[in-house]
Amino acid sequence: MVSALRAGAADFVLKPCNDDKGALDDVIGKLFDRVRVNRLNQLYRQELEEANRDLRDGIAELRADQRAGRKVQLRMLPEHEQVMSGLHVDHMIKPSLYLSGDFLDYFRISDDKVLVYIADVSGHGASSAFVTVLLKNLTNRLQRNLRRGSSEDILYPDRFLERINSELLDTGLGKHVTVFVGIISLSERKLNYAVGAHFPMPILSFEGGEAAFLEGSGLPVGLFETPEWEVYEVPLNKPFHLTLFSDGILEVIREKGLDEKERTLLELVSGGRHTIASLNEALHLEQITELPDDIAIVSVTDTMNGSDNTPSN
Amino acid sequence: MVSALRAGAADFVLKPCNDDKGALDDVIGKLFDRVRVNRLNQLYRQELEEANRDLRDGIAELRADQRAGRKVQLRMLPEHEQVMSGLHVDHMIKPSLYLSGDFLDYFRISDDKVLVYIADVSGHGASSAFVTVLLKNLTNRLQRNLRRGSSEDILYPDRFLERINSELLDTGLGKHVTVFVGIISLSERKLNYAVGAHFPMPILSFEGGEAAFLEGSGLPVGLFETPEWEVYEVPLNKPFHLTLFSDGILEVIREKGLDEKERTLLELVSGGRHTIASLNEALHLEQITELPDDIAIVSVTDTMNGSDNTPSN
Repeated sequence: MVSALRAGAADFVLKPCNDDKGALDDVIGKLFDRVRVNRLNQLYRQELEEANRDLRDGIAELRADQRAGRKVQLRMLPEHEQVMSGLHVDHMIKPSLYLSGDFLDYFRISDDKVLVYIADVSGHGASSAFVTVLLKNLTNRLQRNLRRGSSEDILYPDRFLERINSELLDTGLGKHVTVFVGIISLSERKLNYAVGAHFPMPILSFEGGEAAFLEGSGLPVGLFETPEWEVYEVPLNKPFHLTLFSDGILEVIREKGLDEKERTLLELVSGGRHTIASLNEALHLEQITELPDDIAIVSVTDTMNGSDNTPSN
Repeated sequence: MVSALRAGAADFVLKPCNDDKGALDDVIGKLFDRVRVNRLNQLYRQELEEANRDLRDGIAELRADQRAGRKVQLRMLPEHEQVMSGLHVDHMIKPSLYLSGDFLDYFRISDDKVLVYIADVSGHGASSAFVTVLLKNLTNRLQRNLRRGSSEDILYPDRFLERINSELLDTGLGKHVTVFVGIISLSERKLNYAVGAHFPMPILSFEGGEAAFLEGSGLPVGLFETPEWEVYEVPLNKPFHLTLFSDGILEVIREKGLDEKERTLLELVSGGRHTIASLNEALHLEQITELPDDIAIVSVTDTMNGSDNTPSN
């Protein structure tokens, strides 16, 4: 009984009033019960605390791994706020986990031509992030090939998609990707593009108010042996904004139904929200902590002087 | 007091013996204390249980992501138990997390030439696994280039390392890799190889008992702008076993000190443990659940008939 009192019942003042043996036994029995329950509770709590620590350790290890991966992945993204041939280009990427299956890049392919693409690998996380490494590597190689004159594939949106397609199939990762690739020529004031099943389509808006989703369609990349893609062309005869999105953007627009979501997006952009900062603000992207899908945006702003047609390069 | 009794003290038989007001207050006060402590305990337990559930959910999501990544990564590995030009080649890879920074591949580059390489990307996990995608993609391209006659880089161990080096630097992942690459020519009965800081060196053992680590050294791959690698050559004038390891293997050998670990490894192999299965058994790799580093092994067994020198292909 002393140990029972010590183990948790010691703060009870017990004064059995008579020497009724039964009552005393009863009290002592209940005390022991209480002590046992207390001990079980304590054990359970210890187990819970231990499990918690283990889980925290496990999650910390996995998170550290993913963070390191994310750091490596971020190194492959282009610089923010680049100005190329009179185009101001910026981007944002928000992965739903640490690693992103969304990818994008932009660079000059000649004095007055800028290529921009946005890609969304099937799935998300680590398995999809692998494909972004291939995209970056291929894009670098195609640029190098152009410089040394061994291949002009990078100058043609359809051939660009064909190259991604064959390397994806060849590397055998079992992943496909949707891609929009556009080449803006400022001397010719036009945009050529190809669509590898990308959705939603980029929004092209002109100074003065007109804004519309680009037209066009095409097969996803990395699924078929010898697919072909159509090349579309639109004139850029006024200062313009081109805004590219991955489909994750639609998930953070409250409206129901794809049509409504797309309309909302179009209204946002035509209302003047075509920079990364203003889209971020309008869609409260900073505040959202749990994304159902990766989100990527590229914004291209033409800094051409409205009054004359010479690129301000 | 009734609610106090209900809330957890009800199983106590309390019989204050006199109407000493102070003693009664004391008992009731202690009862309330006990009830409060019980409630706090209960709350704490609920919190712990909830935190546990959240952690389990979080870890499940991260694990599912990594498992998917691992599945994609495994697709890039060559088939087990391949027979190429009379060589029987097999491998194993055991990542310390889900994703591996160790990589390996083997394939025929001509009728009687087989290339085998093992690579260990700095670090482990997702960030390192990215590089393995580059390795696979590059290796495929170099094979394709050879077939269509546009580049013979894959025929030369040093040029193979140079290509990995330049693509790694170019893709900007900020990772380097140690590589051993060997080309076995069965008509010439020789092994040519280059060492990109790989450690431990592969073990070459001949029927009859001689076994030794290959000699040679060289810079790591992906760190320097224009490094050069030496090509080593050893004759293969007897049936041989070539066993390649990543350095993770040394972590599971109990002996202390690198020299002792290497000696143990050499003794194992020279004692006849040169297949994946026998190394697995000798080092109890199946039973080890928590690896400090990825482990990769490639075993090459020459099936040349000892009596004549014609490859048995």
